[in-house]
Amino acid sequence: MTIITLLTDFGERDEYVGIMKGVILGIAAEAHLVDLSHAIEPQDVLAGALLLARSVPYFPPGSIHLAVIDPGVGTSRRPIARQLGEQFFVGPDNGLLTLVYTTALEKKHPIKIVQLNQTRYWLPVVSRTFQGRDIFAPVAAHLARGVKLDEVGVVISDPVLLDIPKPFKISTGWRGQILHIDHFGNLATNLTIKELGSLLDFQVKYKDKFVTRLVKTYGEGKEGELIAILDSFGYLALNVVNGSAQQTLQAKIGDEVFISVSQISRAQ
Amino acid sequence: MTIITLLTDFGERDEYVGIMKGVILGIAAEAHLVDLSHAIEPQDVLAGALLLARSVPYFPPGSIHLAVIDPGVGTSRRPIARQLGEQFFVGPDNGLLTLVYTTALEKKHPIKIVQLNQTRYWLPVVSRTFQGRDIFAPVAAHLARGVKLDEVGVVISDPVLLDIPKPFKISTGWRGQILHIDHFGNLATNLTIKELGSLLDFQVKYKDKFVTRLVKTYGEGKEGELIAILDSFGYLALNVVNGSAQQTLQAKIGDEVFISVSQISRAQ
Amino acid sequence: MTIITLLTDFGERDEYVGIMKGVILGIAAEAHLVDLSHAIEPQDVLAGALLLARSVPYFPPGSIHLAVIDPGVGTSRRPIARQLGEQFFVGPDNGLLTLVYTTALEKKHPIKIVQLNQTRYWLPVVSRTFQGRDIFAPVAAHLARGVKLDEVGVVISDPVLLDIPKPFKISTGWRGQILHIDHFGNLATNLTIKELGSLLDFQVKYKDKFVTRLVKTYGEGKEGELIAILDSFGYLALNVVNGSAQQTLQAKIGDEVFISVSQISRAQ
Repeated sequence: MTIITLLTDFGERDEYVGIMKGVILGIAAEAHLVDLSHAIEPQDVLAGALLLARSVPYFPPGSIHLAVIDPGVGTSRRPIARQLGEQFFVGPDNGLLTLVYTTALEKKHPIKIVQLNQTRYWLPVVSRTFQGRDIFAPVAAHLARGVKLDEVGVVISDPVLLDIPKPFKISTGWRGQILHIDHFGNLATNLTIKELGSLLDFQVKYKDKFVTRLVKTYGEGKEGELIAILDSFGYLALNVVNGSAQQTLQAKIGDEVFISVSQISRAQ
Repeated sequence: MTIITLLTDFGERDEYVGIMKGVILGIAAEAHLVDLSHAIEPQDVLAGALLLARSVPYFPPGSIHLAVIDPGVGTSRRPIARQLGEQFFVGPDNGLLTLVYTTALEKKHPIKIVQLNQTRYWLPVVSRTFQGRDIFAPVAAHLARGVKLDEVGVVISDPVLLDIPKPFKISTGWRGQILHIDHFGNLATNLTIKELGSLLDFQVKYKDKFVTRLVKTYGEGKEGELIAILDSFGYLALNVVNGSAQQTLQAKIGDEVFISVSQISRAQ
Repeated sequence: MTIITLLTDFGERDEYVGIMKGVILGIAAEAHLVDLSHAIEPQDVLAGALLLARSVPYFPPGSIHLAVIDPGVGTSRRPIARQLGEQFFVGPDNGLLTLVYTTALEKKHPIKIVQLNQTRYWLPVVSRTFQGRDIFAPVAAHLARGVKLDEVGVVISDPVLLDIPKPFKISTGWRGQILHIDHFGNLATNLTIKELGSLLDFQVKYKDKFVTRLVKTYGEGKEGELIAILDSFGYLALNVVNGSAQQTLQAKIGDEVFISVSQISRAQ
C-alpha cells in the first residue's frame, strides 16, 4: 500500500479534501492516505514549505506527497511532479518544495522534476480553480499505481524557489527570526545549534526579554517561565512552560530574535 | 476495500467520530474510511446536503456514504439507507440527501430506499441520542461487507426532501442567493451558467457592488478585487482575490445576488 | 490490519500528528490509523482520560491506542505500554489511562503494564521534546506487527492515577460536577442513573436553574429549553434543545450540579 500524504490550505470544513481523496481512491483503491495538514493559512506557501521539510524525513521511501497550496491555480504556473531522494511530490510549481528540494541537492540525492502535460492522467474535465482535484490528485494516484514520472510529464530543471529567511551574522552574534508558531504557541526560529555553538556564553533576546540558558526539557522550567530550547527538529525555539509564548509575548512570524555573547560574559 | 465516507456535524474535538470508526472497523475491518467533513454547523442539514451533492460524484461506484446530521435523533424520524445510482447512503431521513436524490431522479439512475428495521445489524443497545454509533455506523459496515439493502430494512418511496432555494426569474434577469461560503470566504450562489447564458451582457449585483465580467482564474483579478467566476462545480461564485469575500462584504448565507443585463448594455 | 488510534493535544494545524503516522507506517505499513482527537486542550490529561474511557469500549479486540498528552515529556515521567483487557495502550505514565485502567480492574480483565526501556524499538535518536514521534509511535507500530509487551519493556504495577472527581452524597441528594462539555455545548456530569435512582422524585439544580424530569430524546424538549437527559454513555447531561447549554449558561468544567428530592415531592 503506497502512502499518499495530503497537505493543503483547504481547511477541513469544506468538501475539497474529501473530494481529492475520492478521486485518488477511484484510481488507486489501495493507497494509504495520510493528512499532513489542511489548516495552513490560505496561500501561505512558506508555511507549507516548512511543514513539508519537517515531515518528509519521517515517511518511508516511496511515499507520495500531494501538496496543494496554490494561489496561482489556473494561471501559467506549472503543474509539476518530482522525485527527491526516494520520495515523490505532486503539486504546483510555486516554491512549496523549496526546503525539501535544497536538502536533496545538498545531500546529492537523486532528483527528477517533470512538468505535468499528459492529460490522460488527469480528470477528463479540468477546471481553472480546483486543479488539486482535476490534475494533482489523479496524477498522485497514478504514480501510486506504478506510473513513472517520465510518463506523466516532461523533464524540467528550473523549479521555482522561495527566498527562505536565513540567520544573519551581526557584530555581537546572530540575527534570526521567528519562522513558525505552532499550536502550543511555541516560537520556532531559523537559528540552530550552528549559530549558538559559535558563542561561548550566549543570551537570546526577543523583544525586551532575555534568556541565558538552553533547557533540555519543558519540565526544567517553571510554570509560566520563558525558556529557550532546541526543538525536536534542531531549531532554537522560545516557549512558555505550560503556556503560550505566542499569546504571552504577542509574537508574530517574522519577528526578529537575536543571539549574542551574554552581557554577563562581556562584563567579566 | 470498500470506501465508507463520514459526514457529520460532530466536530473533531470529541470522541463521536472516532467511536463510529471503531464500530465500523469492528464489523468491516477492511473498510477504507474517508472523512468528508465533521465541521458542518450543528444541525445544518442544508449545508450537509450541498456538501454531499458536490462530493459524491467524485467517489467510485460502490462507495458508502454515512451522513449523520441528525437534529431529530431518537424521535420518529426514520433511519434509512439507500442506493442512488451506484453509490450507497446511510443516515436519518431528514432531507440530507435531497440533492443527490433529485439528481439521481433526473438522471434516471437506479434508486432504492429502505427504512432500517433489522435490529440484528445494529448495536445490541440502541440509545436515543447517538444513533450514528448505534444504528448508522453498524449498518454502513454491514453493507460494506456485502449485506444487501433488502436485508437491512423495508422499501419506502417517500423520503423527506428539503426545499432547496432556486434562482427566481425577475424582469431584469435572475435573483439568486448565496448558498454556501467556503473556508476561503468564497461565496457560492445558486446561479449557474444556465441563468447567465440567457443574458447577452450581464452584471452581477451583490449588496452595493457590481461585477461585469466573469474571470476564468483567480489570477486574472488584482489582489483584493471582487471577481465573479464559475466555481469548480459550475456555480457562479463571488471571490476577493487572495482575500475573503465573506469578511470584506460581511456576507451571509441566504443573502440575495442578482444578475441582470448590464447597465452599459442597456445604455447603448 | 491492526487498528492504531491516535489521541493527542497536538492540534491539526502542525505536522506533529502526520509525522507520528509516517513513523508508524514506516514500521507497520498495514496499520489502520484512526484519529480519536487531536483537539484536547493542551496538557489536559483529564479530558484525554475521559475521551479514552468513552471511546475504547467501541473498538475491537487487539486495537492499539496511542495516547500522547504529555506535559512531562523529557522529564522522569515513565514511558509505558499496557494491555487492559483485550486492548493495548502506549503513552506517558501520567494518568491518561486512569479510567480505562480502573474499569479493567473492576471487571477483572487481564492487565499488564510495562515501562518502555528497549531502545531498539525506538527511533535511533530520541529528543527530549517529541517522544510521541521518537518512542511512542514506533513502539505502537512494533506492537501492531506482533512484538509482545514483554519485549518492549519491564513490568511495573504502580501506574500514575488521576484523582477523578466523584459524586458526593449530601443530605438532600448528591452533589456532582460538570466533567465534560462537548462540541454541541452539552454538559456531561459525573452523575449517573445510580445516583438518580436513589431518589423517588428528583430535581436537577445547576446555577439557578431547575430541571425536574429526564427526557429520552432531544426532540422531546422545546427549541431552546434546558433539558436533562442520560447521555449515550449513561451520564446525566444538561442540554439546550438545538442550542448550546455551554453558551446559554456560561458553563465551565468543574461547575457543581446538584440532584435532590424535588421540592414538589417534599411539599407533598
